[in-house]
Amino acid sequence: MSDKIIPIQDGSITSSRGFQAGAIYAGINKHPPFGMDLALLYSDSPCKATALFTTNKVKAAPVLICQSRLPSSCIQALVVNSGVANACTGEQGIKAAQRMAELAAEKVGISPNCALPMSTGVIGRTIPEDLIAQHLPSINLSHEGGKDFARAIMTTDTRPKEIAIRVKDGDDKYIIAGAAKGAGMICPNMATTLCFITTDANIELEALTSCLKHSADKSLNMISVDGDTSTNDTLLIMANGMAENQLIKAGSSQVNLFQQALDEVCIYLARAIVSDGEGATRIITVNINGASTEKDARIAAKAVVNSNLVKTAIHGADPNWGRIISAVGISGAHFDVYQASLIIGDVIIWQRGKLVDFDQSLLRSKLNDEEVVIDLDMHLGTGSATAWGCDMSEEYVTINSEYTT
Amino acid sequence: MSDKIIPIQDGSITSSRGFQAGAIYAGINKHPPFGMDLALLYSDSPCKATALFTTNKVKAAPVLICQSRLPSSCIQALVVNSGVANACTGEQGIKAAQRMAELAAEKVGISPNCALPMSTGVIGRTIPEDLIAQHLPSINLSHEGGKDFARAIMTTDTRPKEIAIRVKDGDDKYIIAGAAKGAGMICPNMATTLCFITTDANIELEALTSCLKHSADKSLNMISVDGDTSTNDTLLIMANGMAENQLIKAGSSQVNLFQQALDEVCIYLARAIVSDGEGATRIITVNINGASTEKDARIAAKAVVNSNLVKTAIHGADPNWGRIISAVGISGAHFDVYQASLIIGDVIIWQRGKLVDFDQSLLRSKLNDEEVVIDLDMHLGTGSATAWGCDMSEEYVTINSEYTT
Repeated sequence: MSDKIIPIQDGSITSSRGFQAGAIYAGINKHPPFGMDLALLYSDSPCKATALFTTNKVKAAPVLICQSRLPSSCIQALVVNSGVANACTGEQGIKAAQRMAELAAEKVGISPNCALPMSTGVIGRTIPEDLIAQHLPSINLSHEGGKDFARAIMTTDTRPKEIAIRVKDGDDKYIIAGAAKGAGMICPNMATTLCFITTDANIELEALTSCLKHSADKSLNMISVDGDTSTNDTLLIMANGMAENQLIKAGSSQVNLFQQALDEVCIYLARAIVSDGEGATRIITVNINGASTEKDARIAAKAVVNSNLVKTAIHGADPNWGRIISAVGISGAHFDVYQASLIIGDVIIWQRGKLVDFDQSLLRSKLNDEEVVIDLDMHLGTGSATAWGCDMSEEYVTINSEYTT
Repeated sequence: MSDKIIPIQDGSITSSRGFQAGAIYAGINKHPPFGMDLALLYSDSPCKATALFTTNKVKAAPVLICQSRLPSSCIQALVVNSGVANACTGEQGIKAAQRMAELAAEKVGISPNCALPMSTGVIGRTIPEDLIAQHLPSINLSHEGGKDFARAIMTTDTRPKEIAIRVKDGDDKYIIAGAAKGAGMICPNMATTLCFITTDANIELEALTSCLKHSADKSLNMISVDGDTSTNDTLLIMANGMAENQLIKAGSSQVNLFQQALDEVCIYLARAIVSDGEGATRIITVNINGASTEKDARIAAKAVVNSNLVKTAIHGADPNWGRIISAVGISGAHFDVYQASLIIGDVIIWQRGKLVDFDQSLLRSKLNDEEVVIDLDMHLGTGSATAWGCDMSEEYVTINSEYTT
């Protein structure tokens, strides 16, 4: 991080000024890892808020509600449950998601349209409105509640994912913080990635929207646990302006620093999601350089982290680099293997189209590292991109083939 | 099959008149399942031959050689090794593949350009020309050699894949036969699908090419073991005309029957490949109907058989149908879940956008069948397609994460 961006020790989504959170067990999720399945986030003042949602044509009811309310300048509350996804639930699901937001709005005394609902869990089951109505009012909101928030949204995640950073821009100071849940299954069912960001920065809505899209393209849009995209995937940011910094406008120097800081938060959370992928034992980082275009670099990098054959080989620390080459070859990106160079964990494997007589045992030891870094230079142009994934273990299959009952 | 298409019991690739084959152990594949790793197919007279190859931008040397020689009307020999793929091997690999074809041509006394080489195995290793030169001349060719051919091309396949059928078209009779190797790994490395078809039918080269493309789109292009496409994938047909039937021309009624028979051979082999997929315990058949277009039906069907989440759920007989809906939603096909109907193994799950109160234990028992059939009607148009895949087991991961050494 630059000297203008400082990590906050033990930070959480409520590290940003004016944000409170809390969580409770409402009985929606049968096996919540930290005994909580309903979380509420509240801002003392209205937020500019914007979000990116799943590209799946099957969208969960809360996604549809959030889409209809965002972007907005009045958002003050976010309520999230784990246990049921409220997807494929028709009109009843829409009503339940609306009701969930209403209950949150009632609790904190705001207009229902300024509250957002979100869910993660089993597809095809509607939110039990009665349980929400019964338990949501008892949630204790506090400025220290971010930790509980990050834990209540977990499903089969093995650890919470949260971060906060302080940004110093001349005399201005503001905070960006976030919490995410990863590709975990509940019961199990479809994996969902939810990622919520708060900031007390004073920023134009238009600039906020543009920054979020840009950060997503470098982070959450560049990770894969298993190549599936859920019905609920959401990346949401709420900015309440309580840092009282000079308004950050599109095209300003201030926005560049905000972008850089937001990138760091999003990349941190994205990496945390894949490193806690189901059954994952290590993280795979794929850097593509020298592609014809940035788009080519992106699709090639994602093809490698999406390949079951690459993921299983790395799980076994198996030095069969041919699978990486082949995955890039089928990605659709321009590629000439006889121009390319491939480096795995500093070991040069393939240089300008020729196999190098590399040290097999050294490569194997690098494949056993907690993070395996693959660098492929296509030597075709200036396009570059980085994607992150995880290895695939027998445990992945076991988790995903267990009975829903 | 229709009464015009009759299976030949214990048929093999040499069931077609005038074809001979044989195989031997040349020491290229360290663990050949049937003790043979080099196979030769020969036709007593020149064949019209045509093929379809991998769409991977990284193509193995033998693929490049075959592409340069096909379509052709002079092909008489095909030599195939298992153990090394001869991919990512540069000019040296091209020369080795040419040499392999030359040795086959010398053995049977034909022009080198009328012989084809093919390989399957580890990427990045060149064919050991000396071993080929030493052992190929000792192969015993015979009209009963088809069985050995099908076994010598195997890598981690657990069983050979072969079929022959007799076609009666009025007074004309001809045979179509085939052998394939599936998504198995050697050592292990990149999976390869090879599929070779022979026929003694007398057919125009143009019609043969068109029929092969059409059959591939209904068979090998509709299967997935793990979504990866190898550097060597090949579907090749050789027609020697020795059945002396009336010449089958494009647009004739005869070509329709030939197409139907070729479809059956290709679909049989495609299904055999997925049912013997690495670690597979059952076959998954996905029928999409009512899609906006045939293209939409094809991408939706393939998305379902490619989904790790669907494959693992079916492995565990887990009735979480939401994963199927979600996979279709992300496929890119037009889709409205609230119009659609979903049936799994005769159990109606979702009808015209509404969840049916189905029998969970009945569904679970259907998911334990050797073949799981998923029928999705989109109710949007007339497009339809069928894809085949297999479940994903812990064994899949184990096979693919083993050391190459």
